[in-house]
Amino acid sequence: MKTTHPTKARIVQRALKIASARGMQGVTIGAVAQAAKVSKSGLFSHFKSKQSMQIEILDAARDLFGANVLAQANTAPEGIARLRAMFEGWLGWARKNGLPGACPFVVAASEVSNLPAPVRRHLIDVQDRWLESLAGQVGVAVRLGELARTVVPRQFTFQLLGIYLAHHWHSLLKTDPDVNARAMAAFEDLIRSGSLRRAAA
Amino acid sequence: MKTTHPTKARIVQRALKIASARGMQGVTIGAVAQAAKVSKSGLFSHFKSKQSMQIEILDAARDLFGANVLAQANTAPEGIARLRAMFEGWLGWARKNGLPGACPFVVAASEVSNLPAPVRRHLIDVQDRWLESLAGQVGVAVRLGELARTVVPRQFTFQLLGIYLAHHWHSLLKTDPDVNARAMAAFEDLIRSGSLRRAAA
Repeated sequence: MKTTHPTKARIVQRALKIASARGMQGVTIGAVAQAAKVSKSGLFSHFKSKQSMQIEILDAARDLFGANVLAQANTAPEGIARLRAMFEGWLGWARKNGLPGACPFVVAASEVSNLPAPVRRHLIDVQDRWLESLAGQVGVAVRLGELARTVVPRQFTFQLLGIYLAHHWHSLLKTDPDVNARAMAAFEDLIRSGSLRRAAA
Repeated sequence: MKTTHPTKARIVQRALKIASARGMQGVTIGAVAQAAKVSKSGLFSHFKSKQSMQIEILDAARDLFGANVLAQANTAPEGIARLRAMFEGWLGWARKNGLPGACPFVVAASEVSNLPAPVRRHLIDVQDRWLESLAGQVGVAVRLGELARTVVPRQFTFQLLGIYLAHHWHSLLKTDPDVNARAMAAFEDLIRSGSLRRAAA
């Protein structure tokens, strides 16, 4: 079992907040040391490099997401009900769980070409697993007969990601006061479209 | 009529490439001066401030988009055909038009909380106009009877934005080799969903 030094855990939580507010490029050794009230040399006693700190930030974001969004969604019955719970929990999850800015994964993705290769690979890995969880639940809904057998889970998940990102975009730019309703209407439209095909099949 | 000094125009084009590759935060006076091979003082003779340069970058991106994507799409017949042309041209437009990295608007949006208020307002304004053009064409398709009267243009446009952003995300992360096919399948699914509602109405 992995145990984390409490100071290190506190530093990572501070760094995650910086990543949410200012992106991975804002996660400098200086900014984190200042936010966590430790010296730069103290920081380096916990992290080998800025790169290893960035990887731990992604893990901390994934753990926060898992402990809140996923744990909550997993109480819903499998199939469309759970898919809806996963999707609803995903919308705005960063703010709802104490992060000051944007979804750290979306911000990191937009900077991906400026991230070191191991951080990029880790980001892709973490995101792939989440998209695969969603696709898995779409597959369950198909097997349960809630969605048509012609529904392709990866295509469906691509569209779910799109709704999430449009919601994230409008939330950041504050350009649509009805952003939650729009995202849920888009979700229901997608479910309806996947069920209609069943009726037509 | 607004004329632009040729040196200034060249500087803005260089700065736009930096914004595409590294984001607005990468558009520093030093980086732009170096890329455009002018002195920092030479740069300030063309731009009052970094902020005014950022606004001109957004205008240059909008002009590039207009001269290529929009001009091309406007040759298609109004309604779904033009909407499809607008959408197809939008996908990957930055790379297709000589920019080295991501869509400058998506990158700027992800940094929006770190942008000065006038730049933020300008970004939102430019993006709103594009989304309104899309919504306008959805409205035309409804009036032509190609989409159901129950289709809400702003909701439809929210979903188009989502597909665009999911395409952009997978293009950046290189996590889906079929990203163009997925985006177009999602577009056609949305059109079908909007037409089915007509059949059902």
